[in-house]
Amino acid sequence: MIEFWYEFASTYSYPAAMRIERLAADKGVAVAWRPFILGPLFHEQQGLNDSPFNAVPVKGQYMWRDLERVCDSQGLPLRHPSQFPRNSLLAARVAIVGLEDGWAPAFSRAVYQANFVDDLDIGSPDVLAPLIAEVGAGPEHVLAAAQSDPVKAQLKQHVAMAKERGLFGAPSFLTADGELFWGNDRLEQALDWAVRHQSREHA
Amino acid sequence: MIEFWYEFASTYSYPAAMRIERLAADKGVAVAWRPFILGPLFHEQQGLNDSPFNAVPVKGQYMWRDLERVCDSQGLPLRHPSQFPRNSLLAARVAIVGLEDGWAPAFSRAVYQANFVDDLDIGSPDVLAPLIAEVGAGPEHVLAAAQSDPVKAQLKQHVAMAKERGLFGAPSFLTADGELFWGNDRLEQALDWAVRHQSREHA
Repeated sequence: MIEFWYEFASTYSYPAAMRIERLAADKGVAVAWRPFILGPLFHEQQGLNDSPFNAVPVKGQYMWRDLERVCDSQGLPLRHPSQFPRNSLLAARVAIVGLEDGWAPAFSRAVYQANFVDDLDIGSPDVLAPLIAEVGAGPEHVLAAAQSDPVKAQLKQHVAMAKERGLFGAPSFLTADGELFWGNDRLEQALDWAVRHQSREHA
Repeated sequence: MIEFWYEFASTYSYPAAMRIERLAADKGVAVAWRPFILGPLFHEQQGLNDSPFNAVPVKGQYMWRDLERVCDSQGLPLRHPSQFPRNSLLAARVAIVGLEDGWAPAFSRAVYQANFVDDLDIGSPDVLAPLIAEVGAGPEHVLAAAQSDPVKAQLKQHVAMAKERGLFGAPSFLTADGELFWGNDRLEQALDWAVRHQSREHA
């Protein structure tokens, strides 16, 4: 098993979300999707009120170019969003609702497509409603549930867990033995680690 | 040809320096070693007076663990230096001196070994002198040259070039067509890019 910690505004979480299920299946590793939001961690750990890629423009410039190369190599489309970062709070809460019913992965991929390909405002219920419908859930019911106290509390708990486990960015991968890997480019290593750990457990 | 921009205090520059010549030779790419110092860029671009890994402890904690894994996978020894980051100015100037005479790569690898394996103060002339001797140069003469105005100016020029080319960290790799890659984990891609560009040039 591997935990996949992702944030809908995070650029490198996009290619990770699009490939993790295939890579993990190839290696026989189950994926636990862990939607969270980075804003509170960025603020607390780095004193930031914005994406580090906006706070340090030279890093942002590099990141967008590097992301183009990464998406090219995966055959993924990419459009630089007209607004970055987009507000990811509502989408994260919706994903939390989807975890129980099993549609969180498909919904999450659709949100990344909306944000980084279709340039849509993923903070808007009007944008999210059709994506919820596409995965077979009821938009009205789900959007109401997403704004309920238990779901809000569950997302807060995810953020608290992320902090406790030493996360500071996304995507991050956490194996059952507590090994942390940060970045889309660490996905293969994280899966290999998970496989080795599983083998030891079953040996 | 590929430019290898490295800083002696930079943790991920260590594994990159140890493997770049072998990987580049396998692909028929020449390496131009470009010693520089990151302090001025960190200060100007991010307002930092220390390593980002010290400024944001949770990132530092992750980096040291990740570096262990990277070094393990390369079969490289690693000892967490008792002082981090170490002052890399003198070593960078010495490397500049070595560029002309061809011993900069071997000297640079020795400096990384001193910093990240032998836990020595690479800011000290006493530490650098034997490393200079090992690569067949004269320590007294080289250390004097390293403190001369032309060499100081050349290192400053390297820093200015780095800034102009959009660098913000190390190791960084720059191809002849101006494509920038940041991080030890981008070395393979950078070399592949260099090869593709060379092929087009000679087509």
